Amino acid sequence: MNAKQLLMLGLSMAASPLIGHAFAQQTKPQYLQVAEIDIDPAQLESYKAAAKEQIETAIRVEPGVLVLYSVTRRDDPAHITVFEIYRDTDACKAHLQTEHFKKYKTATEPMVKSLKLIPVQPIVLGAKPM
Amino acid sequence: MNAKQLLMLGLSMAASPLIGHAFAQQTKPQYLQVAEIDIDPAQLESYKAAAKEQIETAIRVEPGVLVLYSVTRRDDPAHITVFEIYRDTDACKAHLQTEHFKKYKTATEPMVKSLKLIPVQPIVLGAKPM
Repeated sequence: MNAKQLLMLGLSMAASPLIGHAFAQQTKPQYLQVAEIDIDPAQLESYKAAAKEQIETAIRVEPGVLVLYSVTRRDDPAHITVFEIYRDTDACKAHLQTEHFKKYKTATEPMVKSLKLIPVQPIVLGAKPM
Repeated sequence: MNAKQLLMLGLSMAASPLIGHAFAQQTKPQYLQVAEIDIDPAQLESYKAAAKEQIETAIRVEPGVLVLYSVTRRDDPAHITVFEIYRDTDACKAHLQTEHFKKYKTATEPMVKSLKLIPVQPIVLGAKPM
């Protein structure tokens, strides 16, 4: 087999469904969502403290929780947006079962007026190395 | 002056408005905003290509552009959300004057049906080191 044949074999293997499937199993796509949350303004400081504790813990102890950016609107501080990136959907599901998330969820439930979870897909995730 | 007096002097200097002001000048707060953009569905692929090129260039060449996460809703792909972190407000203003941003803006203007820029402030920016 000459170099050209070897190259063609390589290309056909790369394009085969089997190889593609095996590759997909090894590198599941990241799971991303945006949460839009309205908080009772009277309980905003308590909410922020609970969110901060939960997020710092999740980033520290959960390998599949990659990004949890929680921000508040300057012109409407009781409206929270959370930009979330998980290693994959399983990592997101596992996050919801952790003690720190359940503690946050129970504590903040009476503070939350509305919660909308919006599954999203990346166009491009541009970030400086940290 | 003994050690205790020195400590008290240090504490009072740390709490003085002047010292605080100098510190604030040295470490301007990061500027964060969320962009919500509706694209003409017929031009979505062109928009995505232009956004990708612009963001990759900004992250590579602009020291003050820290994060530009551009995502599309799974249930409404023509709705784009961009989560943006700049070193400070000056870095955001400088970004708008770059050739790559102006090229993107001109190219995508006919594709954009609506654009809302929402200034936000962090509660907590949780992220794994990259």
